[in-house]
Amino acid sequence: MTTDAATGADAADARVRASFARQRLMATLGVEVVRVRPGEVVLSLPFAEALTQQAGFVHAGAITAMADSACGYAALTRMPEGREVLSVEFKVNLMAPARGERFEATGRVVRAGRTLTVCTAEVVAFEGEAATTVALMQATMIAVDAG
Amino acid sequence: MTTDAATGADAADARVRASFARQRLMATLGVEVVRVRPGEVVLSLPFAEALTQQAGFVHAGAITAMADSACGYAALTRMPEGREVLSVEFKVNLMAPARGERFEATGRVVRAGRTLTVCTAEVVAFEGEAATTVALMQATMIAVDAG
Amino acid sequence: MTTDAATGADAADARVRASFARQRLMATLGVEVVRVRPGEVVLSLPFAEALTQQAGFVHAGAITAMADSACGYAALTRMPEGREVLSVEFKVNLMAPARGERFEATGRVVRAGRTLTVCTAEVVAFEGEAATTVALMQATMIAVDAG
Amino acid sequence: MTTDAATGADAADARVRASFARQRLMATLGVEVVRVRPGEVVLSLPFAEALTQQAGFVHAGAITAMADSACGYAALTRMPEGREVLSVEFKVNLMAPARGERFEATGRVVRAGRTLTVCTAEVVAFEGEAATTVALMQATMIAVDAG
Repeated sequence: MTTDAATGADAADARVRASFARQRLMATLGVEVVRVRPGEVVLSLPFAEALTQQAGFVHAGAITAMADSACGYAALTRMPEGREVLSVEFKVNLMAPARGERFEATGRVVRAGRTLTVCTAEVVAFEGEAATTVALMQATMIAVDAG
Repeated sequence: MTTDAATGADAADARVRASFARQRLMATLGVEVVRVRPGEVVLSLPFAEALTQQAGFVHAGAITAMADSACGYAALTRMPEGREVLSVEFKVNLMAPARGERFEATGRVVRAGRTLTVCTAEVVAFEGEAATTVALMQATMIAVDAG
Repeated sequence: MTTDAATGADAADARVRASFARQRLMATLGVEVVRVRPGEVVLSLPFAEALTQQAGFVHAGAITAMADSACGYAALTRMPEGREVLSVEFKVNLMAPARGERFEATGRVVRAGRTLTVCTAEVVAFEGEAATTVALMQATMIAVDAG
Repeated sequence: MTTDAATGADAADARVRASFARQRLMATLGVEVVRVRPGEVVLSLPFAEALTQQAGFVHAGAITAMADSACGYAALTRMPEGREVLSVEFKVNLMAPARGERFEATGRVVRAGRTLTVCTAEVVAFEGEAATTVALMQATMIAVDAG
């Protein structure tokens, strides 16, 4: 990696973590940033009783919140400074009950446009040795002028 | 309303509230049941700092979690006893920042099939006298055998 | 209706029909404009063998093409002159097999923004006396500079 | 590849092509089967004036019809004999105008369940030397008893 690329990656990382720290819902749910690269953000969530649905699995809404933030921050890494990201829409398929000790959402930019950015996210549940994909998101993010 | 219909409505109400009470995420977010009718469920969420995204509005993930539960429980009111509901997938358009003192999600059954049920949900933000639709969901729910 | 409103409705109608006439796919499928009002467009499609899927029903792709155009043109009626409409994304639930003599798609604007417009469309199949909703679309349209 | 795997691949290929040949809409649009593997189907569509939208690009509806069939047939390769496939729902992001001489849709199974199968499809436009991803689909397919 060249110094410039490293600088770019560091800047993306700092930018995402600064914004993420202001997303109070992430702290409420227990989501943490694992890794930020240009075009890709990985978030992690440990299981907690406070997040469950009626059968004791993690609620689709908590899984979706994590996937949405992963997509949004992946998109932010591709936006010019001075721009902020908002979710336009997303679609999630819940492919298996969210059962596990820990969940990891990887958001990736598929196409970054000037205004709109298309992302996907995959959420994987880890239980003992097993890793199961529990959700798949396809999302549209929009760049808006920051505050 | 005939006595039978009243009984049906009461049974739907009791069934939804019993399951909702086991959704720990709803308590964590602060969501409450407002009204249950066959085919329609209304949930309410007061604003809380703990739910915000980076700009101080309620995070799309919290809005979506509420809309998902509204759709799921609307679907449950149309399912035979002994069946439980799971989310197959949903799509949400975030139409305006979720800014307000209180948010209300109304989930409605559009078509109830033997296995799959299609629902929509609308989330409205209330701020002073103003009511703004902030999100629209289109969802597929599946009936599974209860525990 | 005031004269201005009537003029607005006539202008919307002319604008939609002029663009629709250039959508060659609509003629290929056999789709026709039924009605244009500000914020709402109704299209119609007669059954044809050329449109079927493997079981003899109309293919979800043909139903979706019609719903997409209904949404797009509903959005166009809310866009300023000199703007053209493109589909950003849409989601369709196919709720029943598209069996019938004729299909009607009604596209409606839910929220018109400066850049993005959210629409829904419902597609109804008519067979003898029966009318069945076969598809539900939730779509995002974008305004771009014309030509 | 073992002989059994080869036989399985041949059987999947024959099964998909037999059903595809009954999808009259595919012939109407000009879509052809390029390749069938277990869990993956590739379809191709040459540009034709008959498929265009108002600006002369291929209409999102034609692109979606092709992507839907690619997903559906990818799902069919994972379903037991005697089962047929129907689309439950799909979501498409249109990422760039469908401009090109030829379009290719690759449908892939992400998760095959007993009843529901989740697929994705990517549609690429080829124009001279350039290849551009123009659409991304995330879909749910259902297995039903054949005829």
